Amino acid sequence: MADTVGKPIKCQAAVAWEAGKDLSIEEIEVAPPQAHEVRIQIHYTGVCHTGAYIQTSSNPEPSPNCELSGVLRLTRCVHVIRQGPRGRIPIVLGHEGAGIVESVGEGVTNVKPGDHVVALYTPECKECKFCKSGKTNLCGKIRATQGKGVMPDGTSRFTCKGKKLLHFMGTSTFSQYTVVADISVVAVQQDAPMDRTCLLGCGITTGYGAARITANVEEGSNVAVFGAGCVGLSVVQGAVTQKAGKIIVVDVNPTKEEWSKKFGATDFVNPSKLEGQTIVEKLIEMTDGGCDYTFDCTGNVGVMRAALEASHKGWGQSIIIGVAAAGQEIATRPFQLVTGRVWKGCAFGGVKGRSQLPDLVQDYLGGKLKVDEFITHRENLKDINTAFEQMKAGDCIRCVVTMKE
Amino acid sequence: MADTVGKPIKCQAAVAWEAGKDLSIEEIEVAPPQAHEVRIQIHYTGVCHTGAYIQTSSNPEPSPNCELSGVLRLTRCVHVIRQGPRGRIPIVLGHEGAGIVESVGEGVTNVKPGDHVVALYTPECKECKFCKSGKTNLCGKIRATQGKGVMPDGTSRFTCKGKKLLHFMGTSTFSQYTVVADISVVAVQQDAPMDRTCLLGCGITTGYGAARITANVEEGSNVAVFGAGCVGLSVVQGAVTQKAGKIIVVDVNPTKEEWSKKFGATDFVNPSKLEGQTIVEKLIEMTDGGCDYTFDCTGNVGVMRAALEASHKGWGQSIIIGVAAAGQEIATRPFQLVTGRVWKGCAFGGVKGRSQLPDLVQDYLGGKLKVDEFITHRENLKDINTAFEQMKAGDCIRCVVTMKE
Repeated sequence: MADTVGKPIKCQAAVAWEAGKDLSIEEIEVAPPQAHEVRIQIHYTGVCHTGAYIQTSSNPEPSPNCELSGVLRLTRCVHVIRQGPRGRIPIVLGHEGAGIVESVGEGVTNVKPGDHVVALYTPECKECKFCKSGKTNLCGKIRATQGKGVMPDGTSRFTCKGKKLLHFMGTSTFSQYTVVADISVVAVQQDAPMDRTCLLGCGITTGYGAARITANVEEGSNVAVFGAGCVGLSVVQGAVTQKAGKIIVVDVNPTKEEWSKKFGATDFVNPSKLEGQTIVEKLIEMTDGGCDYTFDCTGNVGVMRAALEASHKGWGQSIIIGVAAAGQEIATRPFQLVTGRVWKGCAFGGVKGRSQLPDLVQDYLGGKLKVDEFITHRENLKDINTAFEQMKAGDCIRCVVTMKE
Repeated sequence: MADTVGKPIKCQAAVAWEAGKDLSIEEIEVAPPQAHEVRIQIHYTGVCHTGAYIQTSSNPEPSPNCELSGVLRLTRCVHVIRQGPRGRIPIVLGHEGAGIVESVGEGVTNVKPGDHVVALYTPECKECKFCKSGKTNLCGKIRATQGKGVMPDGTSRFTCKGKKLLHFMGTSTFSQYTVVADISVVAVQQDAPMDRTCLLGCGITTGYGAARITANVEEGSNVAVFGAGCVGLSVVQGAVTQKAGKIIVVDVNPTKEEWSKKFGATDFVNPSKLEGQTIVEKLIEMTDGGCDYTFDCTGNVGVMRAALEASHKGWGQSIIIGVAAAGQEIATRPFQLVTGRVWKGCAFGGVKGRSQLPDLVQDYLGGKLKVDEFITHRENLKDINTAFEQMKAGDCIRCVVTMKE
């Protein structure tokens, strides 16, 4: 047993002190886990178009999704982390993290010290109305406190320079040690490298799950994926696994054609290159009437509409995955729905983290789910601001940040 | 065999000659049915918030629904029949009709002279991509010609004063004789009175089917129905048959409370009487989080939004049945869908007319489906304009027009 058990741990973390500023690397103090809490030594974290963004939105409750569709230029690719979460600072951000359990609080039975784990911003208590419904992965148990940036008991485990720091999305993986609720963590196979499993904490799972769980893509059906970032390319992977027919990727960045094909797309359309045809018309033409499933992985509400309208009359389903900017709304003629199209969405791909994430790790280990290929950049914690810069570049899918020294 | 077979028939019909004017009762000539066509003596027709409305819309294709939610004052209860279908006159309107087959054209095998039938504005060919999909009732076989107001061969069977009259929704039931495609008609039980079965040609089927087929309401689940016209009250009936828990009707007309309870609603909410609470908040409160299924039967896009947002996070489904005014759009924050709500719609309740309408007739004959109760008014063909006036009154659910002298 580590000699840190029951004691505060001093470690490095990236702290957001102020809106519009870079994150600061600071020494912080991480309190021991209380009852039903888990302290994790974070080894790796992904940098997502994250996070802080969500807290600036006008949503009355925190969004369950974090993803802004990678680097698709179609999107309002707002790097809001720079603007900071209004009224929600100082905070330790980060939600794509993998590490090893250092210690657990009273009553924790689902993980133990030494377990290799992935932090879950979508918890799974298996007891609430949502978990028991069998219809959704949106656990309601700690939603309110998670949204407020505190642990379920209403307090924080992070201190820096005498100030309490807020938690973020129940995970705060931009710290070398973090404390999460026991329902917000899952133990995964120890032979899966943590610099890969960290990415299953968000984008890859979101896309793969959207295709496999939310849409449950039917064999032979035609699929269109708008936005070829980490999420979109993972939708492609999910569609391949489901044995879809055409898998058409739509992205304005021409370099994404190669990426798309590498992940199993059959076709690529650059909407900015179409002449005399909208993307909706093009997709309807390519699929003789429309796609059976379309996925928005951009966060752009105009793209969401196009995705819906490019789906097939009578049965086409359009799944919204991207997170839109605050205050933005989707719209369409109701006729689109009356004629049988279905508009839906999902968070974390509809995946129940504790029950289902090990299956995705197994798919990775078995070669069914590509993860390594997404890692285009790596940084150390001290250079985490550089990682954010890289996300703006079209050639960056995911930057993995090494947290453990 | 009637001696009219193979000959034109002269009969009375209500003709729309001009926008903004009453329908004219005229003697028209109805040509014999051609190959795969059926000539029906219409005995009864319903008057719906119909029809002509749709043709004024900006939709590129004709709407598959006709219903404007009965007489709900919430709706833009546009009586567009008075405005007339722009560029689509003269025409014989009407789409809720029952009668007896007078004669059939070459190749017709699904009905024969003497059959009691219901006209189907949503045909079922059993051969096209849509019919074969098993996922929709929107048959595509004669969509284009039906939308243009002609028979599948591109011509009309109606003549009046030397002018050809257009067909409407493939049915044109405001004539004592009409000709329809063989895929647009279904034979039903002869012991079911035709002044009742005519109403299964639209509103009742639309609502009942939406609850039973499109939503497939789960036992014990909570349902909200916006608009207590013929369609809305039929949704209530469908929900009762599916053994729903709470069935909440929402209507601004207080007289609809009694109607709603009569058809099986457990609760009634008048949104105009709420104090300090929106209808969305009220429904979420009444159902501890939102309804499992909501149905818009109003055609009002604001109501459609409220219906979606009053559905339960994680799994709530909102079904659009009402037809919105031309150019109007539905909108919401994508967050509503990302958090698990599903927005869908249906036409003719998702019911496949030829395969499934006899089941509804059976439900009627077996006492499971109320139809008689909807008939609040009756008129003869010569007074059809009065029937339209009655539709504007809050106490009229359906007026049945007797066509056969």
